[in-house]
Amino acid sequence: MQTHDFFLILLVILLTARIFAELAARLKTPSVIGELLAGVVLGPSLFGWIEPIESVKLMAEIGIILLLFEVGLGTDPKQLARAGFKSVVVALAGFILPLLLGFGVGYWIFELSLLISLFIGGTLTATSIGITARVLTDLKRHHAPEGQIILGAAILDDVMGVILLALLYEFSIGGGVTLGNASKVIMFVGAFFVLAPVAAKLMSAIIKHINTTTEIPGLIPTTIVSLVLFFAWLAHSMGAPELLGGFAAGLALSRRFFLPFGTALHADPSFAEHIETEMKPIIHLFTPIFFVMVGLSLNLREIDWSSPYIWAFSMALMIAAIAGKMLGPWFIREPWPARWIIGTAMIPRGEVGLIFAELGRESGILNNEIYAGMVIVIAVTTLLSPFAMKGLYSRFNDHMLPSNSA
Amino acid sequence: MQTHDFFLILLVILLTARIFAELAARLKTPSVIGELLAGVVLGPSLFGWIEPIESVKLMAEIGIILLLFEVGLGTDPKQLARAGFKSVVVALAGFILPLLLGFGVGYWIFELSLLISLFIGGTLTATSIGITARVLTDLKRHHAPEGQIILGAAILDDVMGVILLALLYEFSIGGGVTLGNASKVIMFVGAFFVLAPVAAKLMSAIIKHINTTTEIPGLIPTTIVSLVLFFAWLAHSMGAPELLGGFAAGLALSRRFFLPFGTALHADPSFAEHIETEMKPIIHLFTPIFFVMVGLSLNLREIDWSSPYIWAFSMALMIAAIAGKMLGPWFIREPWPARWIIGTAMIPRGEVGLIFAELGRESGILNNEIYAGMVIVIAVTTLLSPFAMKGLYSRFNDHMLPSNSA
Repeated sequence: MQTHDFFLILLVILLTARIFAELAARLKTPSVIGELLAGVVLGPSLFGWIEPIESVKLMAEIGIILLLFEVGLGTDPKQLARAGFKSVVVALAGFILPLLLGFGVGYWIFELSLLISLFIGGTLTATSIGITARVLTDLKRHHAPEGQIILGAAILDDVMGVILLALLYEFSIGGGVTLGNASKVIMFVGAFFVLAPVAAKLMSAIIKHINTTTEIPGLIPTTIVSLVLFFAWLAHSMGAPELLGGFAAGLALSRRFFLPFGTALHADPSFAEHIETEMKPIIHLFTPIFFVMVGLSLNLREIDWSSPYIWAFSMALMIAAIAGKMLGPWFIREPWPARWIIGTAMIPRGEVGLIFAELGRESGILNNEIYAGMVIVIAVTTLLSPFAMKGLYSRFNDHMLPSNSA
Repeated sequence: MQTHDFFLILLVILLTARIFAELAARLKTPSVIGELLAGVVLGPSLFGWIEPIESVKLMAEIGIILLLFEVGLGTDPKQLARAGFKSVVVALAGFILPLLLGFGVGYWIFELSLLISLFIGGTLTATSIGITARVLTDLKRHHAPEGQIILGAAILDDVMGVILLALLYEFSIGGGVTLGNASKVIMFVGAFFVLAPVAAKLMSAIIKHINTTTEIPGLIPTTIVSLVLFFAWLAHSMGAPELLGGFAAGLALSRRFFLPFGTALHADPSFAEHIETEMKPIIHLFTPIFFVMVGLSLNLREIDWSSPYIWAFSMALMIAAIAGKMLGPWFIREPWPARWIIGTAMIPRGEVGLIFAELGRESGILNNEIYAGMVIVIAVTTLLSPFAMKGLYSRFNDHMLPSNSA
């Protein structure tokens, strides 16, 4: 790859994302839709101008990790803990119901094999935490009570999805699933979520100390980005999604962070603000790359739109995908507008669903028709849910609790 | 390349660069030396932990372009124009003398072929604008009169070096050198340098206008980075070094920019400041990656240190390399401390010299022994010149004119 070719690809991605996001915002549409559409337009679905080259893909991964870092930075851990039980219920329901419904559609209605049906169900369990977090941030509801329930549930869904994917993959290559393996991963993830914020907090204390003595500029950008990358890498090493590492690092640096056992490590609000000011431009540079890449990896041209089988299959799957996520919030005590919003927020499958489906196709479990049907479901849920959320919020605005955010 | 492996490499590069830069600063050494040494330590010269993978290389290229953008942003075009004649003299002398001396060492002393000797001379013409600009920025002398002469000369050297490299390359593959080709490139580069700042200025006016009406955050980081990448790409398309594009974009957004023919496009100081505030963290994140990559690509282990031929060759070449650059400033009217400083600043060959030498080896023109001798010259000039500059500045501090910078 020549440097100037890379520069051209990167600048086309950044500019197209911005132009489409501006247009979307002026049409009162979530700006993330603009960025996704920029990817659809630039990618194989429409013009095929930009190929998803590795270097840009990796920068996109930095983007999504940094977005989760930003979300974590703005999260009040107390509130997240208070939302905890409700998040667990929503996540469990939003995991089990789509898995069963998706499996049912495959196994009983379309008479597919056990493994294929399990894979279809697995793909439907994913929640695109990227899309969800971005829409909540755009609407300034990520610190609101229902926003915290959604984020907690989306993160738990992601963890459960990755574990299920690992198990299905082992099963498909004939390794068999051991309960020992599965529980080891769950234990690791649990340990990570408790210990990571504590470790990150200690590291940030070191960074803060160096910040008062250093003579050369650029400490915050290099060390905070390193910290976020480190926790993403650590999360992966423990079998958890990398996103979780970014979120944990953000949580640790958030202003209202408190250590377990009441240990006194006072957060310095001016230092937290300093971090936010320095990190914002970097986050704003990297995150659009991620959403463009999601749009780029949706190849709508590969789908045989004239096949009645694909239409029937994707329609049945769509109902399973939407119903599976919408039912979850009715198991918790919340006013009904919040229930509608929480359910809708869990619908987009986005990048997580695509990773599932792509792995299924690559390993030969899913044939092209089934893969195409799933891509339709992923595209529709990803593109429509942000609209639905925006609509619900403007409809039920008076019924919602005020956001706790600054 | 797995995402988590990439994260690990990037964070090791960022953290090691920072630690070595901090150590360097505490030892009263230019911090860029710390970053270069971080690359030497991590790379094949010492531990061999990090390989220069493509994705990180490309991020390093963004780093150097952004550094030149920052330098351009702080440059007063009036002062650059005033330094113009002196820069041209220094650049021409610093191009012709090392070319002749390097050629002489190869052709007459070591009896190498015409093409090899020309290539050796060509490598010695390069000035590492990255190292030079960084040391001047660290010492806060990049806006001072002698700093402007140095930057102008280094940029011109870069342009001439690229043209020479293109001609030698054509010559080596048997294409023959046409004067028409050479003058076409020179014309393009000239046109670019005059027109690019004007075009960039117009684009920045558009960005400024959108900035007042947009509802979504992140305009400056995405559009300004795109602008810089676009001009780097454009410079390359016209046969000029990409660095030149970054510098031209910075120049256009600088506070004191003036259009030719006295056209009224008033620079808005608060908007320029806003751009600086948002771009600084991004620049600080990317630039260390570049200097670590320069250190990484120096493989000091490949050199057979026991060969008397390599020692003799590199010593002779070192004298040619240093004398060739030190003599230039004596052709202009400057107080003699400034002459010493200007000459010393032109000495580091850094990344530009390495690109030359690498191309010579890859195309089979330079054998391993000659390549090794050149790597020694590049390493010594790159690592020692920042020390020498710092020493000269503290020795002659009272003799220097004050810096014009804010």
